[in-house]
Amino acid sequence: MAPRKLQVACAGLGRMGARHALNFLNRTPRAELVAAFTPDPQEVEWSKKTLEPFGVSIYTDYDEMLKHPGLEAVVVATVTAAHPENAIKAMEADKHVLCEKPLSTSAEISQSVVDVANRKPHLKVMCGFSRRFDASYRDAMARTKGGAIGSPSVFRSQTCDMLDTSGFFVSYAEFSGGIFVDCNIHDIDLALWCFGQDSIVKSVVAMGICAVEPDLRKHKDVDNGIGVIEFWGDKVAYLYSSRMMAAGQHDVTEIIGTKGKIAVNANPHQNLVEIHEPTGVRREIPPNYYSRFEYAFVAEANEFTAACLDNTELPFKLYGAVQAVKIACALQESMNSGQKIDFDEAGRRLDGKA
Amino acid sequence: MAPRKLQVACAGLGRMGARHALNFLNRTPRAELVAAFTPDPQEVEWSKKTLEPFGVSIYTDYDEMLKHPGLEAVVVATVTAAHPENAIKAMEADKHVLCEKPLSTSAEISQSVVDVANRKPHLKVMCGFSRRFDASYRDAMARTKGGAIGSPSVFRSQTCDMLDTSGFFVSYAEFSGGIFVDCNIHDIDLALWCFGQDSIVKSVVAMGICAVEPDLRKHKDVDNGIGVIEFWGDKVAYLYSSRMMAAGQHDVTEIIGTKGKIAVNANPHQNLVEIHEPTGVRREIPPNYYSRFEYAFVAEANEFTAACLDNTELPFKLYGAVQAVKIACALQESMNSGQKIDFDEAGRRLDGKA
Amino acid sequence: MAPRKLQVACAGLGRMGARHALNFLNRTPRAELVAAFTPDPQEVEWSKKTLEPFGVSIYTDYDEMLKHPGLEAVVVATVTAAHPENAIKAMEADKHVLCEKPLSTSAEISQSVVDVANRKPHLKVMCGFSRRFDASYRDAMARTKGGAIGSPSVFRSQTCDMLDTSGFFVSYAEFSGGIFVDCNIHDIDLALWCFGQDSIVKSVVAMGICAVEPDLRKHKDVDNGIGVIEFWGDKVAYLYSSRMMAAGQHDVTEIIGTKGKIAVNANPHQNLVEIHEPTGVRREIPPNYYSRFEYAFVAEANEFTAACLDNTELPFKLYGAVQAVKIACALQESMNSGQKIDFDEAGRRLDGKA
Amino acid sequence: MAPRKLQVACAGLGRMGARHALNFLNRTPRAELVAAFTPDPQEVEWSKKTLEPFGVSIYTDYDEMLKHPGLEAVVVATVTAAHPENAIKAMEADKHVLCEKPLSTSAEISQSVVDVANRKPHLKVMCGFSRRFDASYRDAMARTKGGAIGSPSVFRSQTCDMLDTSGFFVSYAEFSGGIFVDCNIHDIDLALWCFGQDSIVKSVVAMGICAVEPDLRKHKDVDNGIGVIEFWGDKVAYLYSSRMMAAGQHDVTEIIGTKGKIAVNANPHQNLVEIHEPTGVRREIPPNYYSRFEYAFVAEANEFTAACLDNTELPFKLYGAVQAVKIACALQESMNSGQKIDFDEAGRRLDGKA
Repeated sequence: MAPRKLQVACAGLGRMGARHALNFLNRTPRAELVAAFTPDPQEVEWSKKTLEPFGVSIYTDYDEMLKHPGLEAVVVATVTAAHPENAIKAMEADKHVLCEKPLSTSAEISQSVVDVANRKPHLKVMCGFSRRFDASYRDAMARTKGGAIGSPSVFRSQTCDMLDTSGFFVSYAEFSGGIFVDCNIHDIDLALWCFGQDSIVKSVVAMGICAVEPDLRKHKDVDNGIGVIEFWGDKVAYLYSSRMMAAGQHDVTEIIGTKGKIAVNANPHQNLVEIHEPTGVRREIPPNYYSRFEYAFVAEANEFTAACLDNTELPFKLYGAVQAVKIACALQESMNSGQKIDFDEAGRRLDGKA
Repeated sequence: MAPRKLQVACAGLGRMGARHALNFLNRTPRAELVAAFTPDPQEVEWSKKTLEPFGVSIYTDYDEMLKHPGLEAVVVATVTAAHPENAIKAMEADKHVLCEKPLSTSAEISQSVVDVANRKPHLKVMCGFSRRFDASYRDAMARTKGGAIGSPSVFRSQTCDMLDTSGFFVSYAEFSGGIFVDCNIHDIDLALWCFGQDSIVKSVVAMGICAVEPDLRKHKDVDNGIGVIEFWGDKVAYLYSSRMMAAGQHDVTEIIGTKGKIAVNANPHQNLVEIHEPTGVRREIPPNYYSRFEYAFVAEANEFTAACLDNTELPFKLYGAVQAVKIACALQESMNSGQKIDFDEAGRRLDGKA
Repeated sequence: MAPRKLQVACAGLGRMGARHALNFLNRTPRAELVAAFTPDPQEVEWSKKTLEPFGVSIYTDYDEMLKHPGLEAVVVATVTAAHPENAIKAMEADKHVLCEKPLSTSAEISQSVVDVANRKPHLKVMCGFSRRFDASYRDAMARTKGGAIGSPSVFRSQTCDMLDTSGFFVSYAEFSGGIFVDCNIHDIDLALWCFGQDSIVKSVVAMGICAVEPDLRKHKDVDNGIGVIEFWGDKVAYLYSSRMMAAGQHDVTEIIGTKGKIAVNANPHQNLVEIHEPTGVRREIPPNYYSRFEYAFVAEANEFTAACLDNTELPFKLYGAVQAVKIACALQESMNSGQKIDFDEAGRRLDGKA
Repeated sequence: MAPRKLQVACAGLGRMGARHALNFLNRTPRAELVAAFTPDPQEVEWSKKTLEPFGVSIYTDYDEMLKHPGLEAVVVATVTAAHPENAIKAMEADKHVLCEKPLSTSAEISQSVVDVANRKPHLKVMCGFSRRFDASYRDAMARTKGGAIGSPSVFRSQTCDMLDTSGFFVSYAEFSGGIFVDCNIHDIDLALWCFGQDSIVKSVVAMGICAVEPDLRKHKDVDNGIGVIEFWGDKVAYLYSSRMMAAGQHDVTEIIGTKGKIAVNANPHQNLVEIHEPTGVRREIPPNYYSRFEYAFVAEANEFTAACLDNTELPFKLYGAVQAVKIACALQESMNSGQKIDFDEAGRRLDGKA
């Protein structure tokens, strides 16, 4: 008898949701995609053609989907605003949850998701920090933890999207939480991974400009942001995010230690091709986040599945997702207020705000 | 009802065979691995643990395996010497065949496989030239065919394995056909892809040395080979193969055209990590052929499967495999005889040999 | 009759001074090094052997040196604290001046040097911002000015020295003005070059850590500093400086525009050699500032000489040196106070401090 | 009294000659350019403006130039056909000689230059193999000699010029000796440096094509050449030369040893700038030989001067230049005859030809 497969549903079939669905359908041998939910008619149509023929039941009602017979786990890839409710409902229905980042654009609401998860310790609940599953980041972090660069002290990281002149990023900014919450949350999560999940923030400060999309200001957002996060214990992280890269997605991380430095993706490339032509030597780079991190998403699906089936530890803790949102929101606030925000050694804001 | 899946068997579960089996089991959504064959007790043991629990029937008799109910396609990944017999028997049993390269170390025997395939035009029969499925090679070739570098004229390619001091390559040389047949056959196939499958060889010449494994001479082989293939029509390919790379597998190709050049893997790397340390800046490179071409093998499995299920064209012709072996054997001969071998415009040897 | 050569003296024969002296002696065809000054007995000894045989008069009294017959120009490469007095005395004696950066670690004193220069418009007075003469920076800036990347908007730059465990950097910090004044002053000057010399600062903030040299704190300095400079008009520069690079000097600059990005030295290397060895592929990088910028110093000597002889414009204005010191000091202050410093649109501090 | 300077004349003021003249005038502190010779009116005009004002006497008669009072050394940078006569006359007049490569396109005539030099052991006579003075090649070779890669066994090297559609290379081919003598002579010299100056050739074979300049055939030349040189003792060198690079000069060398590999210029670049733009990431590469090797020519001038003044050993032996021409001519012959040429262990041709 073949080993049993995890019965998985995917909620949300937009840009990222569709990819999750296909990864669980085709590239996660120990999982079986049995259901999918979307309220969007176009996405329903797509799923009828692409998923249903392979035995996936399509739902337009999330609650109905949760009742799918035998369902064990839910991937929450709906719009960010729906993440917390979807995740909590799934947990209440005793399903494992893989929730796309961020849990919420609010630290408080993110915490409420964690609170429910804490009451259901038998469930595997994970926030989809995809870079945690990227082979290069894992290699970099393993070397760092192994002492290859001495004590990691300075962390530089950027999440930079290709320029999209369609105006998408302006409308998107209304709900994204802002560039620090949407983009740099990855970098913040990586900084916490690098310096230790329990690092205490000493101060944050951020600045931003609108170089190509002045309309972002009406959503209290920018198209290029710089943030600095100081941690107690002589550690510092500095971050950059942008919506205007010409060549493609360019996410770089440098971990600078007392005895060396590790760079991830300082030299981006789409593949192993270099073109020599009259203008010089050229290579292309991945056009978007997914093309850079495709295999990380596949690893994420497989490892989440294995943890559910085998009841093993997830590779990282859910509460880190709250921490990351909290820092990201502070950066966004600092950028908008023009104020540096300081924290005491217990991590409490010195200005008394929440 | 879910779409039907191609019923596949894998013959041979050694180094490459095991990878093929796992790829068809886990990474080829439209295929179902139903059977596997190996005469080797250790491989049987491995397959009992790794394949059988997923519904794969294990055979120690190849003919029995061919009788597996419903079997539609066979992956031939046995030792090279068994390729032609295994492939022919599978075709005689009306199975599609994906045969690891080379079809045989002999051009004549390779031709006999093609002859059978020609009598069975309803079968999909493909030689596993894995690089044809590599994303970087495909990109390079598409650019070349699209005119990006003018007329491709000079082709440089190398297949270089990491140094293995275990003596494996000496014993392996007894049956491998020699370094030009075992390694450079890939480069020859790529040259034919680049210049056109019907390119006519004008001359071949090869030289070789034993730098680390003098015992290779007893098998008429070397550990470093240089070959040059001149084609009629002002085209030339020059090749290098080696068994002594220090850093890892390093397979490079350059296509030099009248208006530009395309390089594939001139800068090899294992992942996107760079390490800055007191001795400089360092990156690692893939240790072996499979780690370099892992995703090409997955693509190969999926595309072969699709062609079988949908009765569509395979991406390249089987007879090219004979052509490649013929050239590889001529290089090996030239290296051993010290003679350049010339051909007329019909591709016939000027010295009258076969 | 051979064209006349500029009669040059070099004041200070320490690490940088000796290099300036040799560059004017051997690599500046239109200049003649006629005199050199140093109060240091070891440097006197060195100069007796290295400079005197080539007709260079050695002085241990700066005022005497200024009286050297026919002297036209002075390179001020003494300790930073002596720069302003040496430069002013030379101008008072009607000599052209090339003064090593910074003019002074104080913006006010730097301004006093500029004031004297303004009263002597017939003299060529230049602050030695060596990177302004580097071929790569010039290429990058020419492309930027030419519109290659649209409007330059974000500027990232770092000046990072190799780790020196001798304790040199601790004692050096007593007089260097701190890491932002000593290292990042280059990056600040480049940012002003990039965004326009008349850019108005909107805010500065800096943070720093002592990762390897805790004793730096007693000189109000750090071994790793992060600074952000916001300019009015939606421009931002973010800087990093470090004393603990493992592999060598690593000075990088990125100019990010609305239509592209230009990177300078993202991939540092000592020469064109790459070494493939069992640990991977490795290259070395320049061990120190001079080995990175050697040819920039030579160009600086030659262009300064040409401007003096031909009475042509220097490539950049002296007052920029004051601006750069002012910003560098503000960053150093912010790092020590923990306060962000804001400026109005006229560049005046909002907190009313100088 | 200032140290005396070597009194140097430069013969030939064409493309390379003018550069040599300027290097000896401006960038060789211990030399004084006192005379120059050219029969070409345009070059005379140039030299009247550029060299004469600095005290250089201009001659249109080579023999007269040799009589310039106090002259000690001559740089022979005339057309290749004039090299041997110019070099011999200079030696007969007791001048040190730096002769551009090749001494001659004929091995016999090259030998006659060496014969004269051997009779004048007090003279420094050097063939201008510029790459011997390149910092990267020196680093690579020092590492190789130091054992970094075990025993060097395979040598790959290419000399590839940028495409020049003016037809220059066709007319140039009439006197250049052919692509192997003109371009690959550098690579051959490097191979001899690498494997040892006394390496004995076992066989050579070459092939070539006319991809862009079919008219080269009338001068028995090609625009792309591939050559292989086998040495006794299990060493092999394979070479490529081209006249049709799109992006610029691309000269690469790989030294492959039993324990590692060293690459020189596998990643060419004009400077440290990388441009990120919508088509990807791009860098430029040097447009021609001189821009790649500029500093090697400067080092060559300075080291030749030092050897003359101090009566020290030149960095390499003159007879190697004969050896290199001999091999280059054999490659050119093999390419034209279609025959591999074999040699016995004493280096004598097996076919009895000279």
